[in-house]
Amino acid sequence: MAPPSLLMDLYELTMLAGYFERGMHERPATFDFFFREAPFQGAYAVLAGLDPALDWLTSLRFDESDLDYLESLRLFKGPFLAYLSALRFKGTVTAAPEGTVVFPHEPVLSVEGHLAEAQIVETALLNIVNFETLIATKASRVVRAASPSKVIEFGARRAQGPDGALSATRAAAIGGVLTTSHLQAGKAFGLPVAGTQAHSWVMSFPNEIEAFRAYAAAFPDACVLLVDTYDTLKSGIPNAVAIAKELEAKGSKLAGVRLDSGDLASLSREARRMLDGAGLDYVKILASNELDEHAIQSIRTEGGCVDLYGVGTRLATGDGPGGGALGGVYKLVEIDGKPRLKVSGDPGKGTLPGRKRVWRVVREDGLFEMDVVALDGEEVGPGDEVFDAVLPPRHAPIPEGTRLQDLREVLMEGGGRRSSASALTAIARRASNELRCLSEGTLRLSDPDPYRVTLSPKLHGLRLRLLEEARTG
Amino acid sequence: MAPPSLLMDLYELTMLAGYFERGMHERPATFDFFFREAPFQGAYAVLAGLDPALDWLTSLRFDESDLDYLESLRLFKGPFLAYLSALRFKGTVTAAPEGTVVFPHEPVLSVEGHLAEAQIVETALLNIVNFETLIATKASRVVRAASPSKVIEFGARRAQGPDGALSATRAAAIGGVLTTSHLQAGKAFGLPVAGTQAHSWVMSFPNEIEAFRAYAAAFPDACVLLVDTYDTLKSGIPNAVAIAKELEAKGSKLAGVRLDSGDLASLSREARRMLDGAGLDYVKILASNELDEHAIQSIRTEGGCVDLYGVGTRLATGDGPGGGALGGVYKLVEIDGKPRLKVSGDPGKGTLPGRKRVWRVVREDGLFEMDVVALDGEEVGPGDEVFDAVLPPRHAPIPEGTRLQDLREVLMEGGGRRSSASALTAIARRASNELRCLSEGTLRLSDPDPYRVTLSPKLHGLRLRLLEEARTG
Repeated sequence: MAPPSLLMDLYELTMLAGYFERGMHERPATFDFFFREAPFQGAYAVLAGLDPALDWLTSLRFDESDLDYLESLRLFKGPFLAYLSALRFKGTVTAAPEGTVVFPHEPVLSVEGHLAEAQIVETALLNIVNFETLIATKASRVVRAASPSKVIEFGARRAQGPDGALSATRAAAIGGVLTTSHLQAGKAFGLPVAGTQAHSWVMSFPNEIEAFRAYAAAFPDACVLLVDTYDTLKSGIPNAVAIAKELEAKGSKLAGVRLDSGDLASLSREARRMLDGAGLDYVKILASNELDEHAIQSIRTEGGCVDLYGVGTRLATGDGPGGGALGGVYKLVEIDGKPRLKVSGDPGKGTLPGRKRVWRVVREDGLFEMDVVALDGEEVGPGDEVFDAVLPPRHAPIPEGTRLQDLREVLMEGGGRRSSASALTAIARRASNELRCLSEGTLRLSDPDPYRVTLSPKLHGLRLRLLEEARTG
Repeated sequence: MAPPSLLMDLYELTMLAGYFERGMHERPATFDFFFREAPFQGAYAVLAGLDPALDWLTSLRFDESDLDYLESLRLFKGPFLAYLSALRFKGTVTAAPEGTVVFPHEPVLSVEGHLAEAQIVETALLNIVNFETLIATKASRVVRAASPSKVIEFGARRAQGPDGALSATRAAAIGGVLTTSHLQAGKAFGLPVAGTQAHSWVMSFPNEIEAFRAYAAAFPDACVLLVDTYDTLKSGIPNAVAIAKELEAKGSKLAGVRLDSGDLASLSREARRMLDGAGLDYVKILASNELDEHAIQSIRTEGGCVDLYGVGTRLATGDGPGGGALGGVYKLVEIDGKPRLKVSGDPGKGTLPGRKRVWRVVREDGLFEMDVVALDGEEVGPGDEVFDAVLPPRHAPIPEGTRLQDLREVLMEGGGRRSSASALTAIARRASNELRCLSEGTLRLSDPDPYRVTLSPKLHGLRLRLLEEARTG
């Protein structure tokens, strides 16, 4: 079920009321969604959240109780409320498909329609796409840090609300974390679910080995034992070894042990040594406890032996430097066929005017070279000079021997979706394939090489002209 | 509508299946919710989320589609699934009321019931209470930094999902931010809504002053003009002054101007000077742009003239050092009448055993002196030696002349709520009153004085005895 239509800031409707009174509400307008900085101090983002965002657009309507509420605010007049009751989203949405790797400053999604419908969808689009893109990007970083070890998402208990948990799991899957502990997400999205046990299980029995034995009896073929309730190396691992031997005697195999506190690098090394020494090299080691891409990197640097990482809080909330929220914005770029520009005192807070297309420049080896933002209808190709999006712009030609792909497609036209939603696994596969087309430097988790997002000659010229007009006039 | 019953980690149900098979699922058990560190490097938290958490408990039931899904996992047997279909929460919940100021290590909420029902509610309780408590605490800090200026919550577009936005607004209200831009939250919780306009409004007109004039015509008595689309001081403020004069001529008054970029301290000082110089001392200045308690403090330190702060991203996501998530946990403390203890290699990751009560020690002047966690049934009072919760424990007596208040009350018994939910404004008032009973040092936003949470003699003794048993046994 789509979120409520009143997932919007008051000003969307006060502005619309203003347009309505002046008869401006049906003027054709184009808005762009873009972000100015990639999250987590990285160089890229994995676009996510489009499917739920389009769902919201198709279900947008103010019902009786919404209209009663709006009337109670004593801000809106009768004719405007009557207009709202009939309002539906009938615009066009052009966007990079979910799972596309995208970069700062480029319009990854554009909405064209009447000023009314294109304006009021701002808050919801930003809410849904900002959050899922944040989490999909975080997931891709965690997966990269852990690879080839796998990652399970454990975030439901620390996610930002029940729905935060659900959409975080969806977005994490897009970024490559396809297994979750969260049952509602497993049910809703068809993702595999996994889990171990809580300390309370171990504490519910007279001692640790009885607790382990009971769990192994209940789930002989899917038994992962939590070994840190009392003392990981003195008690947890030796008891797990004993249970593994008991399972072997019954023809089963202990699936794994889980470390959830202490120095995970050294504990996992020692646990591996003890398990291997007992002939249990098949028993996997799962580690958890406030992990993220950086913690996983340092476990690996220190020679940790971890087969599976359980990542919760920091994945489900997109926590970490440069995280917490993606600062995506939604800006008017054209009205009545006239391009518009926002100037700003903050460098980098300006906008790119006009209806545009985004071209991805792909090398012969398949790697992504740069993106070019051009005006709609403008032809660009190898050899053309293009200008950096960030002022003051350096410029350089699009390299020869590359081909240009249209980054975006029309996902919605006249308010209707062009095609049904892709399966989550297909979206995740797209993201994974796209990430393989970035250079190692662009993928680096800290201090990455920035990816070049450039402006076509005509867009660059239009921007300069409008900036100059704003300065002088 | 309460979140789905499958808002739970898989292990809640695998553990329950294990207990069920051994006939342990109806043993009486007690679990405590507590956190180990106050968020944002502060000294306290404002407890929030109880009302939605209790709603979830009362609505817990696995419906046909849930049971079909669980069956499809091929982990659970028929008799267990039949048991689940009839399972309801019939336990007892004892907690500090929403809006109470609470501290690390004390059990702010306890659940007593059968092991089954008390265990499986873990994920949902943590999800709901962790997030709302995080945001309520953040809001209280922002309000303190801004006071006596007011704060409006602008976070919907950057909140963690649609429901994240809704519960963030609820929690922000508990922490003292009672006005929001988010319409669904206004509708759902009866909170006042407010807003200004977007840059797109200004850019939809041929120039800034026409845009301002049009907005003033539509909302002559609630007009706040966004002045930074082109140039705040050269264009935005002079045009706002002109519109204010036009409104005066028609008998209305310009409500305010909004600064949304640049150096907010110096821009607000200069804007104030220009407005006052034009005889417009009644026009309020609203500031926004990535604000939080620290940014607001530095605007004030630098002599900024801001009447209203619009706080979005960092409030709605609880961002900032020590933020992003509250690390609340839910731990078994007693089973079959026997107290239980989790030892841990990480100092401070242990638990407090047994069924307990929490006493707040209040001085004659009404200030809170310390909290004492005692065993249920234990008598404590002024003069008794109490021990710090963090090991190694210092100890000192409860001061004479103080009185002890029971911090918690029974909110739910036999699965039914004892009383209906409090109004959000009443909960916010409680929080505000409680915060007034903390010392300035405890309230400080950075490097606060820790508030003392202590253990009663019997609880301290029980903990030492169980730790010793774990070490030797």
